[in-house]
Amino acid sequence: MVVVVSAMSGETNRLIGLAKQISDLPDERELDVVASTGEQVTVGLMALAIQAEGGRAVSFLGHQVRILTDSAFARARIQDIDGRLITSALQAGKIAVIAGFQGADRDGNITTLGRGGSDTSAVAVAAALKASACEIYTDVDGVYTADPNVVKNARKIDRISYEEMLELASLGAKVLQIRSVEFGMKFAVPIHVRSSFNENEGTWVVPEEKAMESVVVAGVTATKDEAKITLPGIPDRPGIQAAVFRPLAAAGIVVDVIVQAYIQNGRTNLTFTLPSSDVARAQDVLAKHCSEICPPEHIKTDVNLSKVSVVGVGMRSHAGVALKMFEILATENIHVHLISTSEIKISCVIDAKYAELAVRALHDGFGLAEK
Amino acid sequence: MVVVVSAMSGETNRLIGLAKQISDLPDERELDVVASTGEQVTVGLMALAIQAEGGRAVSFLGHQVRILTDSAFARARIQDIDGRLITSALQAGKIAVIAGFQGADRDGNITTLGRGGSDTSAVAVAAALKASACEIYTDVDGVYTADPNVVKNARKIDRISYEEMLELASLGAKVLQIRSVEFGMKFAVPIHVRSSFNENEGTWVVPEEKAMESVVVAGVTATKDEAKITLPGIPDRPGIQAAVFRPLAAAGIVVDVIVQAYIQNGRTNLTFTLPSSDVARAQDVLAKHCSEICPPEHIKTDVNLSKVSVVGVGMRSHAGVALKMFEILATENIHVHLISTSEIKISCVIDAKYAELAVRALHDGFGLAEK
Repeated sequence: MVVVVSAMSGETNRLIGLAKQISDLPDERELDVVASTGEQVTVGLMALAIQAEGGRAVSFLGHQVRILTDSAFARARIQDIDGRLITSALQAGKIAVIAGFQGADRDGNITTLGRGGSDTSAVAVAAALKASACEIYTDVDGVYTADPNVVKNARKIDRISYEEMLELASLGAKVLQIRSVEFGMKFAVPIHVRSSFNENEGTWVVPEEKAMESVVVAGVTATKDEAKITLPGIPDRPGIQAAVFRPLAAAGIVVDVIVQAYIQNGRTNLTFTLPSSDVARAQDVLAKHCSEICPPEHIKTDVNLSKVSVVGVGMRSHAGVALKMFEILATENIHVHLISTSEIKISCVIDAKYAELAVRALHDGFGLAEK
Repeated sequence: MVVVVSAMSGETNRLIGLAKQISDLPDERELDVVASTGEQVTVGLMALAIQAEGGRAVSFLGHQVRILTDSAFARARIQDIDGRLITSALQAGKIAVIAGFQGADRDGNITTLGRGGSDTSAVAVAAALKASACEIYTDVDGVYTADPNVVKNARKIDRISYEEMLELASLGAKVLQIRSVEFGMKFAVPIHVRSSFNENEGTWVVPEEKAMESVVVAGVTATKDEAKITLPGIPDRPGIQAAVFRPLAAAGIVVDVIVQAYIQNGRTNLTFTLPSSDVARAQDVLAKHCSEICPPEHIKTDVNLSKVSVVGVGMRSHAGVALKMFEILATENIHVHLISTSEIKISCVIDAKYAELAVRALHDGFGLAEK
């Protein structure tokens, strides 16, 4: 058995807070040195706890095992794991307790993987050891067809494909860190998401199976705090999108759904969504860099939006899913601002006040409560 | 410039407390993993603080530089330091900030050096880099001829030899960790003990100099919480001391002054001192292992003792120092229980209630207030 642990609740925030007291924008190499101590403490305590229960355990830090990452401090990516130390601990009959969230680059600098990085560490270690499965212990029983706080009859999903889980994770279901699912998919590690508080079977995240295709929609999810910015009547010429999105990207503003609608006379409306918290900054950037394309006073913003999505690999072989989604929303008189689709997902941007109603209606309409 | 930092005040105790909540006797390898995070946090924060002031700084952990130790967890000894990473940081114009108290053994396990280990790290790093000096920043202005809280006219010592400092440190002056002085002596690193709160010149701990020999006594010090145990009338035969002290050592009880006085009829009194806190345990050990040598009901104990010492390399070339010490104590009507001497030190065990009086009398009697 190999255990990967994260920091104690609130500890990573406390450590980052210490650094932020010194500098608003602390050097990320040093920030990682400080932040990685959260997992170093728990890995030692976990080994002690196992020993106190009569087990044999030994702890390993990221640089010890060694979890090799690139040098992108605070958001490093795992490149390789040397499983030899872990394997010899296992062969000696010990439980290996490994610090999540952390690694070391080629020069031995301490790195961290960013928020939720311990999930990624766990799946990466499981992949390196060719483990039969990686169990993620969390505060919920598994992945549900919708947020059980919103939809009373939401059902725990027994098995879900990596692709579906990726879409759900990126669309607001916070059960698993996206990169951990990517890792699981890349190395075909079955991930079992389950509760820390009971022995119930949770949700298995696994490669796509034939049976999954008969289920058109696996889950419904909604994000909050979305906003929309529209640049009306801008020139419809090559490079115009790049001219708008380059300065936004340079300012670190992540744009989500983008829609461009042709009007007339070589002019077009460009609309995109972004987190509400970035709207003011985006307006500044556009006023500074794009005033020739669109005068600042013409720019329209719309906050208090939500993105509701249905996800399922069955969409690949079933037509009419989008149509059904629009019909369900129309029945509830919910206006759809923007639409975005992928092979296994349809998202609609709507007014935030209708988000919970939409999730419930879609959950019912697609019959997700029944297995 | 190279900076070695210790943990924030109280942090090492907090971390060890977390481990003790899990186990009364935690595995020391895991304890070191946890305890070493205190310095990992401060090393990152110190680098950030230097950067915030406009300096260039980079932090290094014990295993990064690398501070190689033996595998005696919680009390590891430094065996070697690879100064290359530090040197290249210095050559790049950076201040190297190094975590004290910690190292790594040959297998890469994290180790700690025990209490006060950061002083030792600092001197060891200075030795490895052949630094011109190691400055120890502390909460006092330097080393004094006696505790200034006890002796009003105690004088700050400008220069003191390693040997004298070693005796003072082991006799209760808590300014410097003993092992750091040993390291300084072994590698001839000048140690400058000075205050964190002002720019005053402190005390230089250096190799013995000719001028020092003219000063007979460099300082007076006193330990508290000493106790005395006497085994009266035990058989005076070879091996009797080993039979008494072997089980005490096995129980981890450190015995200090030992005096054996012949009485008559092949019988002797064996007396030794030890910390008051160990008396009860020592009585148990003696009752269990030495009842044939001395019945438990015959054993005499005496707590509330103090050991008062005068230290100075000048004693080597000056006779009569011990006599003068006894005369000074006799003038104050202070009874001497036990005497212990070394080449540069004389210690007298007395009743604890006279300790401060004795220190003041000796400080005056040996004229330490005058330079």
